[in-house]
Amino acid sequence: MAKEKQPRKPRAETPKGFRDYFGADVIERRDMLSKISAVYERYGFDPLETSAVETVEALGKFLPDVDRPNEGVFGWQDEDGDWLALRYDLTAPLARVAAQFRNELPTPYRRYAFGPVWRNEKPGPGRFRQFYQCDADTVGAPSVAADAEICAMLADALEEVGIERGDYIVRVNNRKVLNGVLEVAGLSGDDKEAERGIVLRAIDKLDRLGADGVRALLGAGRKDESGDFTKGAGLGDAQADVVMGFMDAKRDSGAETVARLRELVGASVIGGEGVAELETIADLLAAQGYGPDRIEIDPSVVRGLGYYTGPVYEAELTFEIHDEKGRKRQFGSVAGGGRYDDLVKRFTGQAVPATGVSIGVDRLLAALRAKKLERGEAETTAAGPVVVTVMDRDRMADYMKMVGQLRQAGIRAEMYLGNPKNFGNQLKYADKRGSPIAIIQGGDEAAKGVVVLKDLILGAKIAENATLEEWKDRPAQVEVPVADLVAAVKKMLLVEKRLEDYL
Amino acid sequence: MAKEKQPRKPRAETPKGFRDYFGADVIERRDMLSKISAVYERYGFDPLETSAVETVEALGKFLPDVDRPNEGVFGWQDEDGDWLALRYDLTAPLARVAAQFRNELPTPYRRYAFGPVWRNEKPGPGRFRQFYQCDADTVGAPSVAADAEICAMLADALEEVGIERGDYIVRVNNRKVLNGVLEVAGLSGDDKEAERGIVLRAIDKLDRLGADGVRALLGAGRKDESGDFTKGAGLGDAQADVVMGFMDAKRDSGAETVARLRELVGASVIGGEGVAELETIADLLAAQGYGPDRIEIDPSVVRGLGYYTGPVYEAELTFEIHDEKGRKRQFGSVAGGGRYDDLVKRFTGQAVPATGVSIGVDRLLAALRAKKLERGEAETTAAGPVVVTVMDRDRMADYMKMVGQLRQAGIRAEMYLGNPKNFGNQLKYADKRGSPIAIIQGGDEAAKGVVVLKDLILGAKIAENATLEEWKDRPAQVEVPVADLVAAVKKMLLVEKRLEDYL
Repeated sequence: MAKEKQPRKPRAETPKGFRDYFGADVIERRDMLSKISAVYERYGFDPLETSAVETVEALGKFLPDVDRPNEGVFGWQDEDGDWLALRYDLTAPLARVAAQFRNELPTPYRRYAFGPVWRNEKPGPGRFRQFYQCDADTVGAPSVAADAEICAMLADALEEVGIERGDYIVRVNNRKVLNGVLEVAGLSGDDKEAERGIVLRAIDKLDRLGADGVRALLGAGRKDESGDFTKGAGLGDAQADVVMGFMDAKRDSGAETVARLRELVGASVIGGEGVAELETIADLLAAQGYGPDRIEIDPSVVRGLGYYTGPVYEAELTFEIHDEKGRKRQFGSVAGGGRYDDLVKRFTGQAVPATGVSIGVDRLLAALRAKKLERGEAETTAAGPVVVTVMDRDRMADYMKMVGQLRQAGIRAEMYLGNPKNFGNQLKYADKRGSPIAIIQGGDEAAKGVVVLKDLILGAKIAENATLEEWKDRPAQVEVPVADLVAAVKKMLLVEKRLEDYL
Repeated sequence: MAKEKQPRKPRAETPKGFRDYFGADVIERRDMLSKISAVYERYGFDPLETSAVETVEALGKFLPDVDRPNEGVFGWQDEDGDWLALRYDLTAPLARVAAQFRNELPTPYRRYAFGPVWRNEKPGPGRFRQFYQCDADTVGAPSVAADAEICAMLADALEEVGIERGDYIVRVNNRKVLNGVLEVAGLSGDDKEAERGIVLRAIDKLDRLGADGVRALLGAGRKDESGDFTKGAGLGDAQADVVMGFMDAKRDSGAETVARLRELVGASVIGGEGVAELETIADLLAAQGYGPDRIEIDPSVVRGLGYYTGPVYEAELTFEIHDEKGRKRQFGSVAGGGRYDDLVKRFTGQAVPATGVSIGVDRLLAALRAKKLERGEAETTAAGPVVVTVMDRDRMADYMKMVGQLRQAGIRAEMYLGNPKNFGNQLKYADKRGSPIAIIQGGDEAAKGVVVLKDLILGAKIAENATLEEWKDRPAQVEVPVADLVAAVKKMLLVEKRLEDYL
């Protein structure tokens, strides 16, 4: 009989664009989200956890950002023929919940949520198909006091996780002001939709193209470096001046900025409304002590060309870090949001005013890590366990008893569970685990009723820095009676902590 | 021009079999998982969060439980033609990670994980297609000390979340003992696979069919209530006695049970190995003080007829609760696991010994809730915020200032953000939010520089119980200077807490 062909072994790989998070990364994110949650809860927001899977119908098939219209979702067809998909953000599920449970939920409904979202995008370096978001939204509140509240909460949340005041700025703008400006520039009619589109896209490219590039796009058009020509909106100079003036309207104080915007929107009703809303937001924030050092009006914020209908806001980190080549760079935006009054209407036909923010969890974590590095602080690592080594495999019960006592005392501890034959492997294991102390008890020690504590952190420090005379005298291991094990481990952990602080 | 047909509105519904979690439910689960995590970390386990999406190839297309072979996963085809799917448990992803990162991870690798898993099953009452699991596994440890450790950790975790000692039991068995028993019963050859299958399925039905039903299935077969006949394994009386004896082998002490099992497996090498392992586990646990009041050897545990290869264990809750009809019932199993030495081998070709447990998070939460109810304790609810009402919409900044002061003092607080016109709606809102205090400041109070605090909890108690003379004298509202707002709210919250304890 012919030998059967071996089946091919499956590849042990995450799918392209997906990743795993280990140890300290998980703990770091959990701690950050728990701090943000505490702030959100103090503001009266309740947690909500929706299912990861939604009907494609409820999601609305496409992502809101018009700049990337081809991005999709991960979807599949149900046995009943319904199309289901993984949520691509936390806002679409909230809109569904607000409609589905409108009779049970309080109005307004303040909710926060965090969790993974999934996007069927081309993966790239640092660009994953599953990532965390952390959102807070108020549904059913028409007043811009709701927007102001979220801006204040965002500032509090950033400070709570460790971004110091002065290292961030929450910037606020209003879509209505932009609409007013477009009206003044003569671009408000139904027949001007194409021009409005060109203008909006041009504004969004200010960072990349600079003022001259945008100006060209507002006029006849622009030839890029490759020689390709992009047709412009065809505005006259006076019209283009209005739009350029909008992007450049920020003044030293909020009051001056508001005054400048009022000039720009002129007689436009919608524009005037937007300016008044910005003024109210600034007043409400000032009443609570949030000045322009934390939250400022900035007309250059043009985020959310998609579904936003009123105030828009974003948080930018303003401190500089150095990249791997020593070049200074800034982190930029870590959170953004705004008012979207039409999302719930899709389901119920009734307009439901809503506003909310989304924090880019991975970006904020990366920023906190970079900040730590710049300050010369150690990376977060999970505290390694005390490792009880196995010298004699017939006395596993004794070692297990020791580890049990340590755990009962609240000390993170393990017995070595690999093959105990090679003692060197046990110490290598302890090293890989970042273990502070190895516990050793061979036959001689057992006969004497003692146990040896090996101080692995001190050992490493001495190995690292042989001239560290001061610490060289300290014994890197001590022998104590078995009954004193827990007390001796506690003492050594305390000394290590002090040692760590000293060096 | 004909009027365009309105597009059909999307339905605001979770897909069938999916659900959302609100407020207190989210908090309760988060708190429970955080307690379990703390225990796992004390035992040296590190957190791992794998991606929700895996390749179907890595998952292994089917669920391990042979009793439900048709259950599937939610899967779809990638743009490259690869099939992807949502994980159906946390063990398959761990096997993939252990293979993928085998050079980076410590050996043994202790990891814990919690998060949602997805199953493409027919949804039913209380049966969802997305649910939480909380797992801990040790990969790369051949010693049964690893199994003993997980049993001890499971007992600690249950006590940590609030299941008292005596209200649960961790039961341990060993697949090798069962294999030995089958060998003794003459069912070990390759040609006996069909019979072994019948015997295994029969054992698994002991709960449902009782001893007589199982005995019938071991012999010629069994006719059920409907008259349908299930063919039996065709064992003779002596053979069947061995199998029945196995299920009934539990004695008063672990030592006696072990002795009885040793009799049953007779000369079977694999059986003898299994019995010796159980003995070692019992010894290791006893050394740490985990006696049969917490963890016991119980041969009737036959879980995991799928991939388990050695020790198997499960945690059962033993307290009784009353269902909605007042009938006593028990909660049964809330966690289970065992040793599975072949899962990583799929990827690497090398056997990697592993053992681990999975806690059914929703079941355990339900049990804790039921236990609370039986004790007459209140359900967990999210603490309601202090609500600052809006009497005069021109003075929003003043109200926002008050709410800001309360929040700065760490008090959960909100300004009412709905339409302020109807004051009754504001109090209804406060009621729906479970608010302890409403803050009121109309024009008169503002002119006097005071603010009114309305004690909503006391108000509710008085309304509920009009004879509560003792509390009737307490004013349900007080007027304080604006400057004393925070102090007065703190004081009222303290009194309410005392009141709550008193009633």
